[in-house]
Amino acid sequence: MAGGIGSRFWPVSTEEYPKQFHDLLGSGETLIQKTFKRLQKIVPSENILILTNERYKNLVLEQLPEVVENQLILEPAMRNTAPCILLSALKIQKQNPEAVMLVAPSDHWIEDEKAFQENIIIAFENCSNNDVLMTLGIKPTFPNTGYGYIEFEKAQNEIKKVLRFTEKPDYKTAKKFLSEGNFMWNAGIFVWSVKSIISSFENFSPDLFHLFENGKEYYNTAHENNFIISNYKKAENISIDYAILEKSPKVYMLPATFDWNDLGTWGSLYEKLQKDKHNNVTIGGKTLFLESENNIVHTEKDKLVVLSNLTDYIIVDNGKTLIIVPKDKEQEIKQIREVAKKKFN
Amino acid sequence: MAGGIGSRFWPVSTEEYPKQFHDLLGSGETLIQKTFKRLQKIVPSENILILTNERYKNLVLEQLPEVVENQLILEPAMRNTAPCILLSALKIQKQNPEAVMLVAPSDHWIEDEKAFQENIIIAFENCSNNDVLMTLGIKPTFPNTGYGYIEFEKAQNEIKKVLRFTEKPDYKTAKKFLSEGNFMWNAGIFVWSVKSIISSFENFSPDLFHLFENGKEYYNTAHENNFIISNYKKAENISIDYAILEKSPKVYMLPATFDWNDLGTWGSLYEKLQKDKHNNVTIGGKTLFLESENNIVHTEKDKLVVLSNLTDYIIVDNGKTLIIVPKDKEQEIKQIREVAKKKFN
Repeated sequence: MAGGIGSRFWPVSTEEYPKQFHDLLGSGETLIQKTFKRLQKIVPSENILILTNERYKNLVLEQLPEVVENQLILEPAMRNTAPCILLSALKIQKQNPEAVMLVAPSDHWIEDEKAFQENIIIAFENCSNNDVLMTLGIKPTFPNTGYGYIEFEKAQNEIKKVLRFTEKPDYKTAKKFLSEGNFMWNAGIFVWSVKSIISSFENFSPDLFHLFENGKEYYNTAHENNFIISNYKKAENISIDYAILEKSPKVYMLPATFDWNDLGTWGSLYEKLQKDKHNNVTIGGKTLFLESENNIVHTEKDKLVVLSNLTDYIIVDNGKTLIIVPKDKEQEIKQIREVAKKKFN
Repeated sequence: MAGGIGSRFWPVSTEEYPKQFHDLLGSGETLIQKTFKRLQKIVPSENILILTNERYKNLVLEQLPEVVENQLILEPAMRNTAPCILLSALKIQKQNPEAVMLVAPSDHWIEDEKAFQENIIIAFENCSNNDVLMTLGIKPTFPNTGYGYIEFEKAQNEIKKVLRFTEKPDYKTAKKFLSEGNFMWNAGIFVWSVKSIISSFENFSPDLFHLFENGKEYYNTAHENNFIISNYKKAENISIDYAILEKSPKVYMLPATFDWNDLGTWGSLYEKLQKDKHNNVTIGGKTLFLESENNIVHTEKDKLVVLSNLTDYIIVDNGKTLIIVPKDKEQEIKQIREVAKKKFN
């Protein structure tokens, strides 16, 4: 899934060039390139579908030269995750009714690729043999109020039965979840057989199911694109979590054994990058920090940035736009972007 | 005088393109253009000499198209004010031994041009008739520790006898000066006859006097430039204040009746510019201030700058360099520039 616009990473991430197509970590590879390589170790390249907005078609093809056009599912309208997941499940089912599929965001950080592979293979096996929907759970390290939480049944099994999902709890609730022990972060990485997910849509999201079931004869043919263009925009703008996972009684969780970060905000990126002795992070430019600590500075490559007496700030400059925002206001960057667009466009 | 590099206005003011050649006030004219226009109302254009470093020759000729090359005194080495003032006095004397001259920095802010003219004319008359050195005094509005102070004899005369100069006093001393009433800021604007200033050099700075007196036969001829190139660098690096004014017993001050600002720092520029309702100043770019007050933001024309939760800061971005420095550290920008140059060049 590579259709988001990463608006909390504005001004680096923009509608024209969103986050997943940037080398946010300064590793030499963009996030989608890193994700594709990670998945290639588990799934043959030609079986990887990229779900993105049609405007990013050329970006995907440039950044993933091994991908051919029929691996792209190009969304003609911006929708949440449920429609594109159902559509891809139906396309895969038409190729192989017994298929098991992995759904993964293109813009997350996962360092331990071996552990990731092992986890996914366990989930694949479980979903091949059982009519279940699986999600990967991340052991929470602090009461993050920006994530979704999975409550699971306390039991000794490796694979846990999911009791409930809670999106973005308040701080007090998040603290309580951590202390109770049977809560994990929802990484948004899912495994299921196409049979299980499609029947779940039929049960819990019948409108979406019928909308896309109607196109079955066109999928993987020259007529697919026309069908998508005519129908995709009719799809409800709903996440897979709300549409299916919160309703289905057969959702299970595998606790991930790898470190994970959703790179959802500048602060979460800060956590993952190397810091100088005053805990400042520099991406791209040359920096001079004077009485300044715990900042993250992201600029174009040759830019010189001098900070004096500034602590816990996000400083991002892409040439056209400069933002200077405290780290604890990182969630507001999305709204700030809207305000700036309204005021100056 | 247009030879400074305005290093406290870094990164906008640079060695290659210093402060006086910038439109710092956003008025549509650079500081040297504004100064030239102000002086033109008192002194015929062709009698205005521009003293600057040779590297700024083209900048001066571009920005002041009415100026011809023989109005330029091009310094082959960076020196303080005394050498260039003596040299220009000798050149003027050779044209007119009875001349009275006005010495003025090219990069100050003076709004009331009429009052300025009136003050200068009073000083011209006084210096035509008396063997005195005159400086303009600015009534201090607060105990600024970055300026020089003139102590004058308490008397009812319009023109005051100067008792003493004090450069950059500490805050306590500056406060005492203000309470005593007979102290003014030294604006660095001087009037004297060439006769008086040259004889003062002969008395109080004989080395400088002889160095430049030696070139008398070359001044205003085709050989002048060669003489300056060979000799200017031998001149002591000393200000007119230290070389002459602090030593001479015949220094007088006219209290200026105009508002003045030396535009010596970003903070002094901030004082002179229009503020929004949260007392933020924007020069050049488009700004969005969120919970941010009393800042000055100077960027390229189309840049968008978002500040969140920042108060009393100087934010300057010239495309290559971005600085974010508290206003109360503005005096450090000069040193910061040095540190940055050492670290990254």
